[in-house]
Amino acid sequence: MNPEKPAPLVPRTEPLFIVLSGLSGVGKDAVLAGLRRSGLPLYISVSATTRPRRSGEKEGVDYFFVSQDRFQELIDKGELLEWATVYGNRYGIPRGPVRQALREGKDVIVKIDVQGAATIRKNVPGAVLIFLLTPDLGELKKRLARRRTETSADIELRFQTAIKELRSLPMFDYAVINHAGELERAVADVVAIITAEKCRVKRRGTKV
Amino acid sequence: MNPEKPAPLVPRTEPLFIVLSGLSGVGKDAVLAGLRRSGLPLYISVSATTRPRRSGEKEGVDYFFVSQDRFQELIDKGELLEWATVYGNRYGIPRGPVRQALREGKDVIVKIDVQGAATIRKNVPGAVLIFLLTPDLGELKKRLARRRTETSADIELRFQTAIKELRSLPMFDYAVINHAGELERAVADVVAIITAEKCRVKRRGTKV
Repeated sequence: MNPEKPAPLVPRTEPLFIVLSGLSGVGKDAVLAGLRRSGLPLYISVSATTRPRRSGEKEGVDYFFVSQDRFQELIDKGELLEWATVYGNRYGIPRGPVRQALREGKDVIVKIDVQGAATIRKNVPGAVLIFLLTPDLGELKKRLARRRTETSADIELRFQTAIKELRSLPMFDYAVINHAGELERAVADVVAIITAEKCRVKRRGTKV
Repeated sequence: MNPEKPAPLVPRTEPLFIVLSGLSGVGKDAVLAGLRRSGLPLYISVSATTRPRRSGEKEGVDYFFVSQDRFQELIDKGELLEWATVYGNRYGIPRGPVRQALREGKDVIVKIDVQGAATIRKNVPGAVLIFLLTPDLGELKKRLARRRTETSADIELRFQTAIKELRSLPMFDYAVINHAGELERAVADVVAIITAEKCRVKRRGTKV
């Protein structure tokens, strides 16, 4: 045994590929913003979308806002890790930056809708899937109603979709509850999940 | 839907049964003391032992110090969840307080040697097994040597045993590294594991 270069008893874990999914309107973007503030060394993926920018949203921070043509080009060139059409708008995860971050040994978190999470579950064996949800359905309805950009028909459609999406919960590794007014608790739960997963004995490699 | 009594979207998880195991001399007692200080609502099991009390150890806090006869009585009456003989001394986990804590919905953590952890793995399906270890073998040797209560033959025996015990690592769920001078980091990892496990979608019931 060479005391200057001791062999570690457990090998360094592979970087994590974390999926943050969950019901529409539950606060996924707020949790990601909280993670950004936490200063955790984590690459937080920025999605590309064809949907119009909402006030307060920043290009390259909240989303990359692209045209339908540009989005199609990204698909055609295989530059999206995953993409979906949600309520008529397209959302996709640029593959390049995710791959680059993992190569540098950085953990990566991506926000994906529930359908997309199912694709990741199938295609990325080592992925860690987190489902963010409200404590109950009444609270979900309240939050959807608070989002002023949508009509009440939109809200009802999202609510019905959420109820269907709940059936996918067993596919996920973790469920994190975003209690009203306790965003930091949800963020802390996600941080704990990342810390714990890095301690897992059986970590498989992640290839995207 | 009754807004006054909303049904939770995910059921409350069963209390956790956590096993803290790991190499002899790695600092399991120090981590438990750290957990005690953390104020986490957790029942930390106190083992019964026939080994003599070391200076600074407190009856009922560090261990229940019992005679050989009393220990045999505990075994005969089925009052030990698990017990083992380690270097000529007997150690056991009183079943009553653990069962009581789980019944009250409290998470429980018990300290068990590696052999005992294997028994728990087999008999308690929902148990969460944590293996505490030093970053490398050189560091382990240093810590064993620092424990002044033992002879150098004792230390060498413990070191050889530790190398054998390392082979059991794949049986564990988590590996936590207790870096020299960074006890609080190991404690924080254990706290994160507990938090994350409470978010796991597939938590099975725990019966001891």
